[in-house]
Amino acid sequence: MSRTEISEYGEFGLIHHLTKNIELQNASSVLGVGDDAAVIDHFGKQTVVSTDLLIEGVHFDLSYTPLKHLGYKSVVVNVSDIYAMNATPTQITLSIGISSKFSVEALEDFYNGVYAACEEYGVDLIGGDTCSSQKGFIISVTALGEVNNNQVVQRSTAQKGDLVCVSGDLGGAYIGLLFLEREKKIFLETPQIQPDLENEQYVIGRLLKPRARKDIFEFFEENKIIPTSMMDISDGLSSELLHICEKSEVGCVIYEEKIPISEDSKKAAYKFEIDPTACALSGGEDYELLFTIKQDDYEKLTLNEQISVIGYVVEAEEGATIKTKGGNSHKLTAQGWNAFRE
Amino acid sequence: MSRTEISEYGEFGLIHHLTKNIELQNASSVLGVGDDAAVIDHFGKQTVVSTDLLIEGVHFDLSYTPLKHLGYKSVVVNVSDIYAMNATPTQITLSIGISSKFSVEALEDFYNGVYAACEEYGVDLIGGDTCSSQKGFIISVTALGEVNNNQVVQRSTAQKGDLVCVSGDLGGAYIGLLFLEREKKIFLETPQIQPDLENEQYVIGRLLKPRARKDIFEFFEENKIIPTSMMDISDGLSSELLHICEKSEVGCVIYEEKIPISEDSKKAAYKFEIDPTACALSGGEDYELLFTIKQDDYEKLTLNEQISVIGYVVEAEEGATIKTKGGNSHKLTAQGWNAFRE
Repeated sequence: MSRTEISEYGEFGLIHHLTKNIELQNASSVLGVGDDAAVIDHFGKQTVVSTDLLIEGVHFDLSYTPLKHLGYKSVVVNVSDIYAMNATPTQITLSIGISSKFSVEALEDFYNGVYAACEEYGVDLIGGDTCSSQKGFIISVTALGEVNNNQVVQRSTAQKGDLVCVSGDLGGAYIGLLFLEREKKIFLETPQIQPDLENEQYVIGRLLKPRARKDIFEFFEENKIIPTSMMDISDGLSSELLHICEKSEVGCVIYEEKIPISEDSKKAAYKFEIDPTACALSGGEDYELLFTIKQDDYEKLTLNEQISVIGYVVEAEEGATIKTKGGNSHKLTAQGWNAFRE
Repeated sequence: MSRTEISEYGEFGLIHHLTKNIELQNASSVLGVGDDAAVIDHFGKQTVVSTDLLIEGVHFDLSYTPLKHLGYKSVVVNVSDIYAMNATPTQITLSIGISSKFSVEALEDFYNGVYAACEEYGVDLIGGDTCSSQKGFIISVTALGEVNNNQVVQRSTAQKGDLVCVSGDLGGAYIGLLFLEREKKIFLETPQIQPDLENEQYVIGRLLKPRARKDIFEFFEENKIIPTSMMDISDGLSSELLHICEKSEVGCVIYEEKIPISEDSKKAAYKFEIDPTACALSGGEDYELLFTIKQDDYEKLTLNEQISVIGYVVEAEEGATIKTKGGNSHKLTAQGWNAFRE
């Protein structure tokens, strides 16, 4: 593979090289990359804004994260926040800090992932900043979305009696991380051993190539469902549930047996001799949607196999509880992703 | 001074602690910090978006940059981009990556600077992300602004015959940097020597506490001036002029004697035995506005002492030229900030 040094382009040249093929997809994107700021038009809608900072060594490990996947995921995690507001993602800005160890070809891989996600979710890359970093790769994405007035769904509006639901399945991304960390360790100790990840494509895909739940957002729209509260699951189910309970001043009861976990994730978890439920509760990065709906909307939900009802909302005084398969009740605690790793 | 470890708060606790006193100033800021995304309302206006990434060791040096000033400047550099589009800044998001060397008190200083700038420029902090960094302080700000349809001013629309103008004075920030770098070097070599910066408050202030030209934006509005092109000067006058020329497919002639440089900056430059004009052309971080106007608007400009007409726009074939005080003509070249430092 050829290697072009970034210095051959200079900052403006590099931005131009990486953004020259952008075709704006949204009518609201009036002006994109190349000026002091981008311009967005509105038609009586509200704009939703979300931002994330991703830092090498903290949020990702380049020894097992392909740059194209990283670019894709950088967009997905922000777009996921927009869907979690019940809004349509429309634009992103992307800033990167890069050290000279990156070649132009490596950056092209990263941007190809960014563009793949932009196409999949219908968002326009409209601006950003490119600068040098002394150490490590730094990525900052801000996503904008639009929503009709009064259709935004917040975290703070769950009500007693509502059903607690999640999309897809949980815990897979965390188990994928365990595999990649294990194989990295083995490789560092004995480089001649090839990584054995063949049977773990599902969980590794969950970590490296997460999807934002555009389909669930569209299902809501088609079936005229407006969740009473919603957020995306980036830190594990427990932490997010507690967050909704705190913000909404309610409690909840969830059932262990109702938490959706794929067969692939279960098998993989057992190889590590860890409990798949613990991975769903305290792992993270699944980017599924956690939401509450009114009981009246229950019938509509049964149309969608990608949605699981896992419990219900109770009064704040009752706290947040999980009923285990064995019939016990435990208070939910937020260990989160970080606690797991330390 | 007391020192509170960040770990005492946890991520959500820290965000809450640093953002709990925010009072939203703009009617369009419907929902601020605390959900997956913020929500902005519109009334038939266009939204302008700009973003910047600031990295310790690349964009700032904490050994001589007070954190409060850094917080203030982080907002100003983005707000400046919004004014450079002829738009009113309305909201910002702020993401920071911090290592454990920072105390909560240090972060409070930083946020106090952020809030001071938010108040001065009337913008609301509506969201962000806080995460750990293995090394160095990382700041990402995205600013949003609004503008009436058809009043956005781009870089690409200067026309032959227009007058080239700049606000304020140039070169000061770069000279301020020279002083601070010199004193840092002296201090590292002989720590007992106290820094001698007393007479250089102007140029040091230009670097550490730049202002965005809200007043110029308001002057345009009051006097019904819409520049034909505009950008803010972050990389030095030469680089920015060449940028407008390239984007607008024009050339320009500017006069060295017309470039505004303060007496304080001149005196300071002579101490370093460097040419103040070179500092204005190739230094940076002055955050003044560079713009072009139609000749018909010239009379209106004379009302404002903060605006200097430095030249005029010519056809692309004539290139970009500076006429020196000695009567010579030189092609403008973009050395920029980085070239100066290396």
